[in-house]
Amino acid sequence: MSELAFKASELDAADELAALRGKFVLDEVVYLDGNSLGALPSAVPGRVDDVVRRQWGSLRIRSWDESGWWTAPERIGDLIAPLVGAAAGQIVVGDSTSVNVFKALVAAVRMAGDGRDASRDESGGESGGGGQGENRDEILVDATTFPTDGYIAGSAARMTGCSLRPVTPEEVRDALSERTAAVLLNHVDYRTGRLHDLPGLTAAVHEAGAYAVWDLCHSAGALPVGLDEHGVDLAVGCTYKYLNGGPGSPAYLYVRRDLQDRFDSPLPGWNSHAEPFGMRVDYEPASGAPRGRVGTPDILSMLALEAALEVWGGVSIETVRAKSLALTDFFLECVAAYVPEGRVESLTPATHAERGSQIALRCEDAGDVMKRLIENGVVGDFRRPDVLRFGFTPLYVGFADVERAARVLGDVLS
Amino acid sequence: MSELAFKASELDAADELAALRGKFVLDEVVYLDGNSLGALPSAVPGRVDDVVRRQWGSLRIRSWDESGWWTAPERIGDLIAPLVGAAAGQIVVGDSTSVNVFKALVAAVRMAGDGRDASRDESGGESGGGGQGENRDEILVDATTFPTDGYIAGSAARMTGCSLRPVTPEEVRDALSERTAAVLLNHVDYRTGRLHDLPGLTAAVHEAGAYAVWDLCHSAGALPVGLDEHGVDLAVGCTYKYLNGGPGSPAYLYVRRDLQDRFDSPLPGWNSHAEPFGMRVDYEPASGAPRGRVGTPDILSMLALEAALEVWGGVSIETVRAKSLALTDFFLECVAAYVPEGRVESLTPATHAERGSQIALRCEDAGDVMKRLIENGVVGDFRRPDVLRFGFTPLYVGFADVERAARVLGDVLS
Repeated sequence: MSELAFKASELDAADELAALRGKFVLDEVVYLDGNSLGALPSAVPGRVDDVVRRQWGSLRIRSWDESGWWTAPERIGDLIAPLVGAAAGQIVVGDSTSVNVFKALVAAVRMAGDGRDASRDESGGESGGGGQGENRDEILVDATTFPTDGYIAGSAARMTGCSLRPVTPEEVRDALSERTAAVLLNHVDYRTGRLHDLPGLTAAVHEAGAYAVWDLCHSAGALPVGLDEHGVDLAVGCTYKYLNGGPGSPAYLYVRRDLQDRFDSPLPGWNSHAEPFGMRVDYEPASGAPRGRVGTPDILSMLALEAALEVWGGVSIETVRAKSLALTDFFLECVAAYVPEGRVESLTPATHAERGSQIALRCEDAGDVMKRLIENGVVGDFRRPDVLRFGFTPLYVGFADVERAARVLGDVLS
Repeated sequence: MSELAFKASELDAADELAALRGKFVLDEVVYLDGNSLGALPSAVPGRVDDVVRRQWGSLRIRSWDESGWWTAPERIGDLIAPLVGAAAGQIVVGDSTSVNVFKALVAAVRMAGDGRDASRDESGGESGGGGQGENRDEILVDATTFPTDGYIAGSAARMTGCSLRPVTPEEVRDALSERTAAVLLNHVDYRTGRLHDLPGLTAAVHEAGAYAVWDLCHSAGALPVGLDEHGVDLAVGCTYKYLNGGPGSPAYLYVRRDLQDRFDSPLPGWNSHAEPFGMRVDYEPASGAPRGRVGTPDILSMLALEAALEVWGGVSIETVRAKSLALTDFFLECVAAYVPEGRVESLTPATHAERGSQIALRCEDAGDVMKRLIENGVVGDFRRPDVLRFGFTPLYVGFADVERAARVLGDVLS
């Protein structure tokens, strides 16, 4: 056994999350693509079968009440809440991340225009009327973001009469001005795995009188987010990466409690009505998190997610973060040992404070290299033009997996 | 055996769709709520189990290609297409009905403003510039519609600078003007079951130079729609009623082929990009139906729907319509025979040309009456304040069911 293999076995033996691996369906493959699609939690197949056969097949329409279908979006939101540092009652599950980005950004722009500043400005008169807020007509968006956020931000800007200004996260502070209505940022960059400074950037956005919208797709379930603690205004995220909800499982929307009454959705579907079964002609928004709902929730995908979230019972996100950093540290150590000098270059920051739960390696012929890795039982993914992406899900990835992945990568590149 | 029970058995014996009932999971309950949630097709549980265990659990990320996940929205759209009279390549599945109403209405308003009329107007100059189109700033919406359509239409109007004018379908022709950009109508009214004149109203909307958006939630799968034949511009619908896709199964969007290049989505997520995996900063919309996609599709719900649609193989929608009318005719006949005079009044038109696949009966204490019906094995639903709603899904409802439902209703009301 090599020195690194021995170290891996020691790290695995000391891993307090090691037993969680048994709660997932895994095989001999080293699966380092959980940042794209999380592995299947063992509780899911049985639950889905029950939802299909008993709840739908037998109870049918009665399940909207009796099986808790109607309240699933906010109930499951409350399961996600502790993982992202949110008190209950602020997260609702449903729709895709893209649709939730649209809701959040449009709502943020509307909040910025309707008197938040006016009410702070002693001379500004009543909230909702005039005031500085009216001049806030710019959305800042992370130029390095997963593209859908930029596309949707473009639409939100177009439809609210704002201009869209793409900036790198490093440029945000300088770009903020009295024109800024909202800022859309990714917590962890999907490509490089860089972790951005959520507390500091949120504070800067607030200092400028604007609203901060965070996309948590690549951080939720891998590291502490601290939404409430850091005063984030709105946030969105998917649930099929580190939350293991399944392919295309519904996304979520966080609206900070004290902003909920001012959350003015661009998608006011009947599920967000104060009295949805009143079938009233006039729209009156619900209170609280359900105001972020739109149409009928996709129950199969949603209840699969609910079962998937059961693995988090008793798991502390701080422990997950510690293991995540240990895994990525160890991977970099193994890569340095096994991969010939100069064949790969890490795009992921070495500093813990700037690292998510993935390692992105720039590599010549990355597409072919990833194919060969997969053929040899190590699954990561390839991002054009030249990036090998490896995601480390602390719930089911072990240190022996990490050592093997780096060893196979070394073999492929030798 | 009563005369009506005998007639029911004769009608059932002659029913060429009778064998389809065996393709659903049913029990001794008379299920007349398929216009709210369709019954479980027998093919679904096994398919969903395969999607969960093998496609997700074992193939994991590879399934986006190998299991056809990525192309599911347009592939399943093509399965729905023949049921609503659309050629392939015009329907995409995903998101909720509400979200699709938003896409369709905003896109219709943009089409109305970007030169359709200008290009017809010889004096109007180039398309996309000036012209009559610019003055089209009104959306007409069915005031009797399922409320979500009105709420979402309000948002679409607000975000496109239009005004919203609620009208009854009967008032549409008079309300159309050179200001009308788009008209949102329900094919079948969710409450009364009234079938509206899609061909005639679409022609009137076109005559006024506006765009017709139809909501097919309560007609698709129950009667012929003829989207292509009648030149409908855009349409949306859910899949969990007469299409039996399961609770909250994804909705669909139809964009007529010759309008697809001008479909300008307010929700341009990465799934609608011409090169979605290019991860490009600039948005370039895909061609064809996929332009209506937004974010990552909810695969579990979507592939359950795909399995559910298999029951339609070889089934003609005209045959379904004929049986639907026979079922509702027979129900009205049985109600007239069994229910004491004056206890109920049908809100559903007697004329076949104006009837969907449901019967709505106004009834005192309708809420309590429906409870008692359900206790006695007949499931319909209650719509406030005073409506008993019975949906007849021709694929699995038989004439003996109808006779029994009316008989139990008569007992409850006697």
